[in-house]
Amino acid sequence: MMRLSDTEDAGEVIAIDWGTSSLRAALLAPDGAIVDRLASPDGIMFANGRRFEDIFRALFGDWIARHPRAAVLASGMIGSRQGWVEAPYVACPAGFQDLARGLIFVEVEGLANVGFVPGLRIEHDDGVPDVMRGEETQVFGALASLGVSEGVFVLPGTHSKWVRVAGGRIAGFRTFMTGEMFDVLRRHSILGRLMPEGGPKGGEPGETFDLGCDMSASGKLLHHLFSVRSRGLLGKTPPEQLADYMSGLIIGEEVREARDFFALSPSPVYLVGRGDLAGLYRRALAHYDLTSAALDDGVTFAGLFALARTHRAQMKV
Amino acid sequence: MMRLSDTEDAGEVIAIDWGTSSLRAALLAPDGAIVDRLASPDGIMFANGRRFEDIFRALFGDWIARHPRAAVLASGMIGSRQGWVEAPYVACPAGFQDLARGLIFVEVEGLANVGFVPGLRIEHDDGVPDVMRGEETQVFGALASLGVSEGVFVLPGTHSKWVRVAGGRIAGFRTFMTGEMFDVLRRHSILGRLMPEGGPKGGEPGETFDLGCDMSASGKLLHHLFSVRSRGLLGKTPPEQLADYMSGLIIGEEVREARDFFALSPSPVYLVGRGDLAGLYRRALAHYDLTSAALDDGVTFAGLFALARTHRAQMKV
Repeated sequence: MMRLSDTEDAGEVIAIDWGTSSLRAALLAPDGAIVDRLASPDGIMFANGRRFEDIFRALFGDWIARHPRAAVLASGMIGSRQGWVEAPYVACPAGFQDLARGLIFVEVEGLANVGFVPGLRIEHDDGVPDVMRGEETQVFGALASLGVSEGVFVLPGTHSKWVRVAGGRIAGFRTFMTGEMFDVLRRHSILGRLMPEGGPKGGEPGETFDLGCDMSASGKLLHHLFSVRSRGLLGKTPPEQLADYMSGLIIGEEVREARDFFALSPSPVYLVGRGDLAGLYRRALAHYDLTSAALDDGVTFAGLFALARTHRAQMKV
Repeated sequence: MMRLSDTEDAGEVIAIDWGTSSLRAALLAPDGAIVDRLASPDGIMFANGRRFEDIFRALFGDWIARHPRAAVLASGMIGSRQGWVEAPYVACPAGFQDLARGLIFVEVEGLANVGFVPGLRIEHDDGVPDVMRGEETQVFGALASLGVSEGVFVLPGTHSKWVRVAGGRIAGFRTFMTGEMFDVLRRHSILGRLMPEGGPKGGEPGETFDLGCDMSASGKLLHHLFSVRSRGLLGKTPPEQLADYMSGLIIGEEVREARDFFALSPSPVYLVGRGDLAGLYRRALAHYDLTSAALDDGVTFAGLFALARTHRAQMKV
């Protein structure tokens, strides 16, 4: 089996969060502190025929030259079938040890071994299979940062994930099409036509978002989505607030579905995410009587750091 | 007030179903029998700068030359703000009389007065407004054809409508984003990527469609949609059946939501529509223990014919 650099336990770690539409990375000191950062638009969908290895060399050659024995780990869609190399899904329940054992390494000649974090899969009781790739690293980073081993983690996004952790392992999770649903309806359906150009406005969500959350409680999404149009047509909601209303309907639907799945009632959840989107989720969670503790999505780097350490420990055995 | 041709009660009727993406019309004898038919791709979204009046002259000049005193009525999006002239929405509950009183006429000089059928609007108890335009004419045509004055009518489509008729009037209705949801997810979301090109296969829907209906029962659409992807990724459903599965999820969701709204339990409903799509709905309705009687969507012409008669009777008073 290939392995990370076989130097001392506590070397540097180059942690790469390499997703569909962008890439973020951090150079971490042996104690986990962030020494340097890097962000690039080289998400896997924008490779445009370039080899991932060449992108990697261009972005990380400099860091590796300075720290030739750093461990290099990448999480996210770069480890999928559409990425550089497929790191096959590991079955739930899964902990740090399982994830570290599932790392797949690729040698970039003369430069580094790059480890790819596997995604997780599960088959729910109702027979529905589910997968994640990238969020598992965020959740483990959150566990490492918080020093907890239990909880429900909410990771909003294109495909939002709700993850239950028990005994330090990911016991189960559910995916929701929330972000992509909002995006395709806004950009490609008749519902977007009455909305002004320029995307949803930023800033604090308002009463129109709450109204959408209200409507979501009855579990009639296909019907209520049409009211985005009828409210606009009949002048019940101003055009510039229609996106907020649709956002409340869809995020509210996610929270309603997830609350039922996870049998949450007034339980606190951990919310992983940034800025405006986290603000919307906090508001929708509160609407459903769920309190939330917010975590920065920098937890990815903490997760990769912890995985590098776990892997090194496994190699010693 | 302008009116239809002031000839004898029982003249010919030119009935035009003029929608967003296409136009269908029929020349009806004084007894309502279809004498001639016409179909054209000149839906209002394909006018491309041409005047609706010019399209009308080109398509109907010949019929009108032969029957200069025919009544001419058009239903559908041609009577919307984006169409030729806006026939403002009439409030529910509404019957033949209300609809006929809401007709808006435009004179096509030297040719005919064209009457545009108004759409219907409603504000539901939960404060949600709803609108329809075109389907009201189909429902009235179904009532005229069947000789009934009570029932729930299901009109599948881009924006499916469920309509409750009581005492010969449309008492209420609900819209569902079903067709458009399927279309945007298939064409623009990640869910379509694993499906083979060429659209959903025709023919009888199978067990995969039923599985989608099964899943819809729990009311977790945002979650279950993601399983279209995970089933494909993990080889649980073959690529050529993923569209059927998604169709079952979304049509099943519509039926579940509508059944709750209309408090239907084993009641029969009238299903208005054609071929494959009607087949899918029949199957989804049966899945939810709803029996259905099928009606051809030619009922539009029967509705326009009945409206022309009602209008003429009103003009006599």
